[in-house]
Amino acid sequence: MRRAACPGSYDPPTRGHLDIIARTARQFDQVQVLVGNNRSKTGLFTPPERVELLAEACADLPGVEVQLFDGLLVDYCREHSIDCVVKGIRVAADFDYEMQMAQMNHRMTGIETVFMPAAAQWAYVSSSLVRDIARFGGEFDQFVTPEIAARTRQKLTKD
Amino acid sequence: MRRAACPGSYDPPTRGHLDIIARTARQFDQVQVLVGNNRSKTGLFTPPERVELLAEACADLPGVEVQLFDGLLVDYCREHSIDCVVKGIRVAADFDYEMQMAQMNHRMTGIETVFMPAAAQWAYVSSSLVRDIARFGGEFDQFVTPEIAARTRQKLTKD
Amino acid sequence: MRRAACPGSYDPPTRGHLDIIARTARQFDQVQVLVGNNRSKTGLFTPPERVELLAEACADLPGVEVQLFDGLLVDYCREHSIDCVVKGIRVAADFDYEMQMAQMNHRMTGIETVFMPAAAQWAYVSSSLVRDIARFGGEFDQFVTPEIAARTRQKLTKD
Amino acid sequence: MRRAACPGSYDPPTRGHLDIIARTARQFDQVQVLVGNNRSKTGLFTPPERVELLAEACADLPGVEVQLFDGLLVDYCREHSIDCVVKGIRVAADFDYEMQMAQMNHRMTGIETVFMPAAAQWAYVSSSLVRDIARFGGEFDQFVTPEIAARTRQKLTKD
Amino acid sequence: MRRAACPGSYDPPTRGHLDIIARTARQFDQVQVLVGNNRSKTGLFTPPERVELLAEACADLPGVEVQLFDGLLVDYCREHSIDCVVKGIRVAADFDYEMQMAQMNHRMTGIETVFMPAAAQWAYVSSSLVRDIARFGGEFDQFVTPEIAARTRQKLTKD
Amino acid sequence: MRRAACPGSYDPPTRGHLDIIARTARQFDQVQVLVGNNRSKTGLFTPPERVELLAEACADLPGVEVQLFDGLLVDYCREHSIDCVVKGIRVAADFDYEMQMAQMNHRMTGIETVFMPAAAQWAYVSSSLVRDIARFGGEFDQFVTPEIAARTRQKLTKD
Repeated sequence: MRRAACPGSYDPPTRGHLDIIARTARQFDQVQVLVGNNRSKTGLFTPPERVELLAEACADLPGVEVQLFDGLLVDYCREHSIDCVVKGIRVAADFDYEMQMAQMNHRMTGIETVFMPAAAQWAYVSSSLVRDIARFGGEFDQFVTPEIAARTRQKLTKD
Repeated sequence: MRRAACPGSYDPPTRGHLDIIARTARQFDQVQVLVGNNRSKTGLFTPPERVELLAEACADLPGVEVQLFDGLLVDYCREHSIDCVVKGIRVAADFDYEMQMAQMNHRMTGIETVFMPAAAQWAYVSSSLVRDIARFGGEFDQFVTPEIAARTRQKLTKD
Repeated sequence: MRRAACPGSYDPPTRGHLDIIARTARQFDQVQVLVGNNRSKTGLFTPPERVELLAEACADLPGVEVQLFDGLLVDYCREHSIDCVVKGIRVAADFDYEMQMAQMNHRMTGIETVFMPAAAQWAYVSSSLVRDIARFGGEFDQFVTPEIAARTRQKLTKD
Repeated sequence: MRRAACPGSYDPPTRGHLDIIARTARQFDQVQVLVGNNRSKTGLFTPPERVELLAEACADLPGVEVQLFDGLLVDYCREHSIDCVVKGIRVAADFDYEMQMAQMNHRMTGIETVFMPAAAQWAYVSSSLVRDIARFGGEFDQFVTPEIAARTRQKLTKD
Repeated sequence: MRRAACPGSYDPPTRGHLDIIARTARQFDQVQVLVGNNRSKTGLFTPPERVELLAEACADLPGVEVQLFDGLLVDYCREHSIDCVVKGIRVAADFDYEMQMAQMNHRMTGIETVFMPAAAQWAYVSSSLVRDIARFGGEFDQFVTPEIAARTRQKLTKD
Repeated sequence: MRRAACPGSYDPPTRGHLDIIARTARQFDQVQVLVGNNRSKTGLFTPPERVELLAEACADLPGVEVQLFDGLLVDYCREHSIDCVVKGIRVAADFDYEMQMAQMNHRMTGIETVFMPAAAQWAYVSSSLVRDIARFGGEFDQFVTPEIAARTRQKLTKD
């Protein structure tokens, strides 16, 4: 059985993220979507909330599980017998940083990373742009699922 | 009548910014220079001060107005019948981020963005480098107007 | 009256090209689509054929004319009172070369160039990829107009 | 059973290529290494010779087959039930072109492409640099296998 | 006598940094390794501690001195008769920023900057990745000297 | 005595090339400007003519010699006790290729390469753009010396 990890911060998960996860699920038997447990000041949802949003959005994808994770990605992968890290990649600006991470992780434990190209129609969507638009009351519905759009509005009203 | 917006943080406005604004003014009937109303911790001038500096520096450019703006750029453009956003672009590193913004803004409201290449002699000048040089007492006069140089020195002495 | 030039080799014109031309036509009063008169060995259509294909595809766009042109772009623009060159830009890899051209042209005659970001759904389409697919009998219909698809097939059968 | 394709020109195959093929073989049940059947003027080995060199170099890798292929990659993949194209990627300069190919191929047939980061120690090695060094009598042995080094020297003496 | 400066934050110094310093020492008579005296919130070692770590690591390199420095690099270079700034460069993502700094520094005082390419095997190593790995208890020993590895562990236990 | 090599095709030498050579001459005791002896079909001057143009343009620079060279750069450097290769670098698009060359050359013989940033005002000038402009009768005088401009016009009239 082949296992992949899709690590990220997913704050919030976008349609671009969900596309990468679904395509990864078609390539692997099991996919662990991993939400890093670091709460930055500019965050919108807490890491456990992001896990919940992703779990709901991925409910129909066979073999996909969503987990909170602490610590080093390479340690998590070793402990959970994960063969490969899959990272969505959108633009050249993402490339050099992801390449450094991949080479460093490979050097540390031999874990393999592959880059999956973002679908053209989502290549310009990022969580940080979605957060900015949502905070200013803009129309962000097309970039996320209806549930995540609703939860984002609810969150921003409460805060 | 064709209207353009030149959004930015302009902290402080550099000769590179002024060159882009002047060239935009030759291409459009009216230009709104928009100063984002967000005060970062690393800022030098307050947004209203930046508006003042720009207004003075652009006084002789026909059809150019300087405004503070809050909220989403696309909303501002819709409300003020702006046809096109003009962004100066200096180096490849700027490109991917600006492209994402442009495509997301276009997707939200249909607003058009065009990139205007920085003049070669200003391509290496950025507000953040000017702030750093000014704070350490370096010679930054050639990168800004004399008025902005004087106001920058005054500001740093007071703080 | 404001005039723009959209220079290119257009062999063949793609939906990405037509999108840039249509959006330029909304920003300017008149648009000259300029087909460079250089016949490369790897070309598919002759330059006059490309003019014909473009003229047909742009027939409904008000203010758009298609021309063959020889010589330097800056000379053509000066002679035809063109205010601005508009170049579609798709990916960071296009950027540095286009920037050099723009800065050199500006230095020679003061002509302005602006970059218009390709629509996300066409950012991956290029004439050379379309030619390669067509030559191997692949499905390229979605990347060009039906007329251009038909003419491309006809051309490849004859050759 | 999961099948991958590793397309390329491999003229000659470098240690960087062999590293990507070996790592792909650990991720998939079967790997088809595909040598494009186009003979460029600057080529060193004919496509059938490259197949031979690769077949020898990959003899000990379970599940790896080497094939000559003509036509479109997407057609080959469809006909041979290949799930995924794996492309080694070395530097940011490779990225935009590979991304366009991947997105165009996905749009045509739904075939997935993933990018596998080159190992750090081979990121600077390319077939064209190896050819140039070999032609000028330089030391290229560390960049290829001993057999390929010998065949390259033999080839250059004959020509 | 020719003098170079190798400025950086070095938090902690990596094997990549030490490789650049050693290679610079072979090209110049004297090398000043300059540790910027700014303490960021995400820092691990204080600037004086970094000077100490570097001084120990460079003890056997002839002509290399390590200094703390405040203020503008161009002023330091002028005061210490330094002919050239040497910056290690790893990936294209570093390039545009370093180019801007180099051109601005040259414009201010005429000081020359040259970029020295990172060795392939260290191109993916950065201080910030080392800090992240160390904080999560990962294996970072191969990226730094044994002394720096020990001091890093000690530091993280104390904090 | 420290020796540098400045290899290139210099067809024709531009003011950007001459600026890099002059700045290299200030950093080294001796500079060998090396003109590769390959005659491409798109060339304007023969390699011996380029040597002549450069020798004249560099006549007043102390320690600078111009040479034709065949074969591998690393061999030439070893035979002539050259310590360092200096390459001008203009834009990010140059970076990845130059980095690969530098790392491959270093791996073969230990020769060091450093990149010298182009002056801002020449960053957009390239020999190939100058050739194109000259061939179409455009104004290229500001990008080369008066002598090279004259020789270029003479050459194009004869051909």
